[in-house]
Amino acid sequence: MSDLAKPHIKVIGFDADDTLWLNEVHYRHAETQFCKLMEPWLTEREAKKELFRAEMETLHLYGFGAKGFNLSMITTAVRISNGQVTAETIDSIVELGLELIQQPLELLDNVEKVLDRLSDDFRLIVATKGDLLDQERKLQNSNLENYFHHIEIMSDKHEASYRKLVRHLDIKPAEFLMVGNSLKSDVIPVLDIGAEAIHIPYHIDWEHEHVADTSKILPYTTLDHFHDLIEVLYV
Amino acid sequence: MSDLAKPHIKVIGFDADDTLWLNEVHYRHAETQFCKLMEPWLTEREAKKELFRAEMETLHLYGFGAKGFNLSMITTAVRISNGQVTAETIDSIVELGLELIQQPLELLDNVEKVLDRLSDDFRLIVATKGDLLDQERKLQNSNLENYFHHIEIMSDKHEASYRKLVRHLDIKPAEFLMVGNSLKSDVIPVLDIGAEAIHIPYHIDWEHEHVADTSKILPYTTLDHFHDLIEVLYV
Repeated sequence: MSDLAKPHIKVIGFDADDTLWLNEVHYRHAETQFCKLMEPWLTEREAKKELFRAEMETLHLYGFGAKGFNLSMITTAVRISNGQVTAETIDSIVELGLELIQQPLELLDNVEKVLDRLSDDFRLIVATKGDLLDQERKLQNSNLENYFHHIEIMSDKHEASYRKLVRHLDIKPAEFLMVGNSLKSDVIPVLDIGAEAIHIPYHIDWEHEHVADTSKILPYTTLDHFHDLIEVLYV
Repeated sequence: MSDLAKPHIKVIGFDADDTLWLNEVHYRHAETQFCKLMEPWLTEREAKKELFRAEMETLHLYGFGAKGFNLSMITTAVRISNGQVTAETIDSIVELGLELIQQPLELLDNVEKVLDRLSDDFRLIVATKGDLLDQERKLQNSNLENYFHHIEIMSDKHEASYRKLVRHLDIKPAEFLMVGNSLKSDVIPVLDIGAEAIHIPYHIDWEHEHVADTSKILPYTTLDHFHDLIEVLYV
């Protein structure tokens, strides 16, 4: 188990949320609580739909992360209550955001063990989108910081952002491998710049990350579990 | 005017908000509008004080930037209205945040001319705190991106963050010069790691950046205008 299966790879980038640690489940929990507060006006299903619509309207302004999500909840509450939502409910919504930010960090299975093994043979980095302070806090709480040479917090994960990242790492795209749970953010743009990608799906996906047409995606590897990385990367 | 006055300096870091472009004035404008909405309950002076208190309570959770500021306004409105604030007013507060985020960018005097000159002889970087997406957007709108080799968006500007920055730049602290409008963020921690700093005060200062006791600060240069940098850096 000590020969490298992909000796050309110099740097492995890891997505963070739902690749290294739990995230989406906390957002879904906050969303459910929010829908409960909206019960006087809409069903859970409708309230979720309105919240998603508000999020998409302001995503280009707020960016990813708990604060923008929280502000979108407030906008949605005012909107769907037709201006009838009380200050008390607004206060509860603000609390939901603060709880989300302070959520204890929970690593996914085998993450530390695998990073420990890989860090002997590769330069490991974190490449995550989202809120700067949120992600820094999570990384600190993860106790994984020492495995990573570099933390890249990106405002979005497009081809251009990956090109910039690879240039910054001073490597060729073909020497970069990205590992993550989102086809849209961690796989497609990475393949499109000529790098490699491994998809480790997580069972809950944010609607924004859904890819409707997967027929034109370049070849990539899909794994069921984080520890399967060892089998892919070593002969 | 072509000999370098500080030939040991390899990299110059620039703070962004109120060093390269206007910022605090937009926050103060939003604050004034907010205080008007709070008139049924408190005077402007008292409302400002309550807002600042709310900001300080959550700064470690929200971080710097417009979204945290906006959420603090909402918390303050609920609090000082004793739960009487209407959904309509909450909506207006959310709008104030969105306006702040979409504020057109206005460069300070001579910034581009000076950066153009300095970029011939130094590696220039931006080292700013605040919201990732906000700062990236402002930099793009500034048309200054090409003058900078690197953009560092920091969740806070402490000694440790500057140490990390200098290590990342692969230079010695003595080879780094920081330019900014905040004694607390751009000068003191920079001097404390053994680098140099130039203070260019801006006439409006955020209360959080105030330094009570300036008697123990190591030596640094203060300039009145951005273009005075040329006189300091060239013989």
